[in-house]
Amino acid sequence: MMGKLWIVGLGPGAADLQAPRASAVLAAASDVVGYAAYVERVPPRCGQVRHASGNGDELARARHALGLAAAGRCVALVSSGDAGVFAMASTVLEAVESGDTAWRLLDIEIVPGISAMFAAAARIGAPLGHDFCAISLSDNLKPWDVVAQRLTAAVSAGFVIALYNPLSRARPWQLGAAFDLLRSLLPGATPVVFAAAVSTPGEKIEITTLEAADPRHADMSTLVLIGSAATRRIDRPDAPPWLYSPRRCAA
Amino acid sequence: MMGKLWIVGLGPGAADLQAPRASAVLAAASDVVGYAAYVERVPPRCGQVRHASGNGDELARARHALGLAAAGRCVALVSSGDAGVFAMASTVLEAVESGDTAWRLLDIEIVPGISAMFAAAARIGAPLGHDFCAISLSDNLKPWDVVAQRLTAAVSAGFVIALYNPLSRARPWQLGAAFDLLRSLLPGATPVVFAAAVSTPGEKIEITTLEAADPRHADMSTLVLIGSAATRRIDRPDAPPWLYSPRRCAA
Repeated sequence: MMGKLWIVGLGPGAADLQAPRASAVLAAASDVVGYAAYVERVPPRCGQVRHASGNGDELARARHALGLAAAGRCVALVSSGDAGVFAMASTVLEAVESGDTAWRLLDIEIVPGISAMFAAAARIGAPLGHDFCAISLSDNLKPWDVVAQRLTAAVSAGFVIALYNPLSRARPWQLGAAFDLLRSLLPGATPVVFAAAVSTPGEKIEITTLEAADPRHADMSTLVLIGSAATRRIDRPDAPPWLYSPRRCAA
Repeated sequence: MMGKLWIVGLGPGAADLQAPRASAVLAAASDVVGYAAYVERVPPRCGQVRHASGNGDELARARHALGLAAAGRCVALVSSGDAGVFAMASTVLEAVESGDTAWRLLDIEIVPGISAMFAAAARIGAPLGHDFCAISLSDNLKPWDVVAQRLTAAVSAGFVIALYNPLSRARPWQLGAAFDLLRSLLPGATPVVFAAAVSTPGEKIEITTLEAADPRHADMSTLVLIGSAATRRIDRPDAPPWLYSPRRCAA
């Protein structure tokens, strides 16, 4: 008997930003699989098996979830934010393509979620209101040259840039290198935002400029937004500024 | 007395993909403002005033919502998908910047949502699993040369591309021109997806290739996804293929 695999985006952190469909799936699953910090966000249910793993081998985690579903279990594989954005949906399909051909017959459903990028943007205005891109800064899986070339192309396109996975203990220099590169391409006054744990009690948001941005203010869970040359700042009395990227664009 | 303005993303269409926070705000608002098709998605409530408008002057709609809030009303301004992605959040802040300085003191809160792009991606796999960008193809607000230059830069960056507002009655040729340009830059076998009304009973998804993509299959509400050279297709017996963009990237 074949089971079911749901790949679920839990949203940015707040319970009321998690889609009801995700909550229903989590209530129905026989097994919850994921990085420990994400599994912890799922309310425990009697009889439900929880498989929490380290932040390491994602392909092994995907294969584990697929194996459970192939054995007849109803598995929820959980990611933060949206499951399709630098998260487990791509990893599962990589495992399907390279794995047991029976896995192609599995009932797999991806439940989308509110991404960290959109939750962060909403807290500070509408920085992603015009053309934008999302880049993972991790060079575990791609050479730094590719990252640098993509940042350069993104600036030439006039995109606002959302940087995922800006740095980690094993990758301490990448965000600083990205800022150095971007400073050579964009005005120093370009808005930069560090957003961590958005929508949770530990939320931390810093609005600064490219000139002043200090990479040490970010960690692995920080989303970094870089404005475009068109991104505007509205200062307000007794409140943080609004940032927004206008819909209109001159030639 | 100052009121409140919520700028609310309703998600892609299905009720169970709308965040509970959005539902709570819609239940609390004295006024609902928006494009008629989006206001229709809000369950009517006794005593709540509904201001439905045509798909036209967004800046006028934003000013209307701000004026109501400044007059003490609690206003929900609704968008489909996420309110910050080619939607009303940017327009409201444009109106704030250029409007009455008292509007800078208004209590404005943006409630993020699941974007059409992520809902569409989830239905077909994980095409946005690696670096990607979102571009509005409308040249109402930006010259076509800028659109073309951005598409070219996006391809040079290796981004998967999500195209919003691909065409309309007033802009019939842009999507075809975009396909022609992309065909000169990417292999003909590059996956292309047309996704309309995702997560609703009228959902229509077509998975094709850049070579075969017919712009007449899109309308204003269609989201068009263009794979990168790395995007892969997994064919399945008796089911639509999966598309995904691998996390790994060669030099």
